[in-house]
Amino acid sequence: MDKKSWAYILIIGDEILLGQRQDTNSHYLASELTKIGVTVKRIIAVGDDKSEIQNALQDAQNNSGAAIITGGLGPTQDDITRPAVADFFGAQLLFNPTLSEIIEKKYRARGIKIPECVKVQAEFPQGAQPIDNQFGTAPGIFFRQGDFLCFVIPGVPTEMKGMAEKFIFPLLIDENRVRPFLYRVFRTAGVSEAILSERIGDWEMEGIKLAYLPKYFGVDLRISTEAESIETANALLDQAEERIVSQIGDVIYGQGDIELAEVIGEILTANNWRLTIAESCTGGLLGAMITDIPGASRYFRRGFITYSNQAKSDMLGVPEGLIEKHGAVSAQVAGKMAEGAANWAKADFALSITGIAGPTGGAPPKPVGTTYIAIAHPEGLDISKFSFQDNRNLNRLQSARAALLLLHTTLKKYIS
Amino acid sequence: MDKKSWAYILIIGDEILLGQRQDTNSHYLASELTKIGVTVKRIIAVGDDKSEIQNALQDAQNNSGAAIITGGLGPTQDDITRPAVADFFGAQLLFNPTLSEIIEKKYRARGIKIPECVKVQAEFPQGAQPIDNQFGTAPGIFFRQGDFLCFVIPGVPTEMKGMAEKFIFPLLIDENRVRPFLYRVFRTAGVSEAILSERIGDWEMEGIKLAYLPKYFGVDLRISTEAESIETANALLDQAEERIVSQIGDVIYGQGDIELAEVIGEILTANNWRLTIAESCTGGLLGAMITDIPGASRYFRRGFITYSNQAKSDMLGVPEGLIEKHGAVSAQVAGKMAEGAANWAKADFALSITGIAGPTGGAPPKPVGTTYIAIAHPEGLDISKFSFQDNRNLNRLQSARAALLLLHTTLKKYIS
Repeated sequence: MDKKSWAYILIIGDEILLGQRQDTNSHYLASELTKIGVTVKRIIAVGDDKSEIQNALQDAQNNSGAAIITGGLGPTQDDITRPAVADFFGAQLLFNPTLSEIIEKKYRARGIKIPECVKVQAEFPQGAQPIDNQFGTAPGIFFRQGDFLCFVIPGVPTEMKGMAEKFIFPLLIDENRVRPFLYRVFRTAGVSEAILSERIGDWEMEGIKLAYLPKYFGVDLRISTEAESIETANALLDQAEERIVSQIGDVIYGQGDIELAEVIGEILTANNWRLTIAESCTGGLLGAMITDIPGASRYFRRGFITYSNQAKSDMLGVPEGLIEKHGAVSAQVAGKMAEGAANWAKADFALSITGIAGPTGGAPPKPVGTTYIAIAHPEGLDISKFSFQDNRNLNRLQSARAALLLLHTTLKKYIS
Repeated sequence: MDKKSWAYILIIGDEILLGQRQDTNSHYLASELTKIGVTVKRIIAVGDDKSEIQNALQDAQNNSGAAIITGGLGPTQDDITRPAVADFFGAQLLFNPTLSEIIEKKYRARGIKIPECVKVQAEFPQGAQPIDNQFGTAPGIFFRQGDFLCFVIPGVPTEMKGMAEKFIFPLLIDENRVRPFLYRVFRTAGVSEAILSERIGDWEMEGIKLAYLPKYFGVDLRISTEAESIETANALLDQAEERIVSQIGDVIYGQGDIELAEVIGEILTANNWRLTIAESCTGGLLGAMITDIPGASRYFRRGFITYSNQAKSDMLGVPEGLIEKHGAVSAQVAGKMAEGAANWAKADFALSITGIAGPTGGAPPKPVGTTYIAIAHPEGLDISKFSFQDNRNLNRLQSARAALLLLHTTLKKYIS
């Protein structure tokens, strides 16, 4: 193993350790580094503390070929990454007039008066190389010490991504710090990890690792290999894929990063079908998932957020008497919501969701989490009942996901 | 400093280092540990690799009083946390008939046949204590070695949270491994970190740290203290809060974890006002944010997802000629959408969003990111134009957030 192609990701900031902020930078960096063939050995989050930062950086230098550090480059007093890293490499911070000019220009371009505190961002470590910041003012810093590379970039996601894509990834590829590592991911829904594992059985395949990645909704399967060449790797992965698909192909909805909503969008587009939705407890969440997919306008034209009983009657034609008799959270109302939506939107498929997301509003026999999801399709109407066991946020998320899965299952029948 | 109240969080799983999965467990644990007074010193993510796991655990034992390890306890072959940690503490794995019975019972209760592979979860380290898993089958493991505590729990968020809340946090409090650490967070929107920092000036206040936490939308300010007693801490924080509020109170929309949508909900509820929305490019995202707040039904009854031109005309009464003349993404159409929504929903306030989220559909003079947001309110109509610079996902998120901020600003005028 050549540690030149190994990297550490260091996330700096008290807000991470205090749980004030969900770090998403390490996820992005790990995903992109993996794609270009860099092995992320470790992700470490430490606070805005000089010795903690230096200690983690020492760990990175001992055990890998590169450190990517994000966070703590801001203009305010609590940001100390710049001096901590400069000191680690024994570099003095000097005022850099060129950088200062670049920073001032950026403020002028935005028509903003330059705050005094920003000037500290032009203090730059001697011997290091600045990394241009396309989306912000603080420049990044690139140190090289022997074989060890150290990149320091801001924690703001857009700035971090811009610098990683324009500077860090190309440099790592140019300097040949990558090796062939390939993987494929199969996305499944509707079955548990244990059942999948039983159907697949013991996995003994030379050179191929299999991992189960359970998510809130569904389980991903990843096969990976570190073969000598890309050709060998792909041949191995082809074999493994054939085996996986023959064993559990029926529950795989897609490969790679693809979302269920995307797979659905492809089927709807290919068949020129239209979809509409009627949401009660999810209040727009299902619509947000559907329209998160570029090109959704080809099959999705309108949706109905019917949060109150009156809205269900006015907008979808659900009879008031039906709501009184069965309650707004009922199979009957879910069915009428879907039918009404399909009619009004002239859609081929219509999904409806009505449920009790919580935290209040539940009472026997309909506790919090009780949810009815209906689908109106050209040949009829199907209604499912779910009993989610989570908090409001997750109950809503699971409801929207379950609706998509119901739609996908229905669409598969129409195209098979 | 007493390292007994310091903790390391270790996240185990190749999927994290490969960027296949966004870790959210460390965020939850860090936030909750901070609340009870445990200092999280470091968060480390390593792969499913015995020596990496043991190495990180050694680091935790050297530098803190407790390690909380999540992930890699599943029933499948790639899960090796159990043997790695047992071996670290020199404990043998033995088949535990009591645990096996508990696990079997859980499967029976769900009416599922027990998969063979699950039996490995009953192999338990000698001398360790099992942690009951309310939401899943794999028991957690609690090791104690001198003053060092080590908790091993599954990576599935619901299971992880259940065990942390029922076992880990109470135990840390009982054994007095907490110290008074208090903080307050002020949430701001509409101004940059640099401007805030300039308005606040140098922060020199004995015993109180100030941190700026920029987010995608808005900046949080955190003041924190590690005073001797809770009374002293609160007195210090009161002083600091007074200063912050006097300096930038006008841009603070709330304190703590509160979301802008929640603050808005409180104002609408208190005044018995109704809100409706008309969404084009966000396709339900704004509705999802509004209905994420429990009790939203008090002020939000219905919403319109009008993704196509036809839907804008049919559902909101936007004249077709107006769309032809100015385009669907225009100030004129945004205004008519908001007015139409307010009329149909008989609402006091109506927000509308129409924009080009991308990645395609943009052309000069309306590039990707061009978004119009309108608010219809009892005394008129306001329309704002935004030029977001991000990808589809973020442009949509920013559009929905900007709409909420516009609503908040308008509501403040009505209640002042």
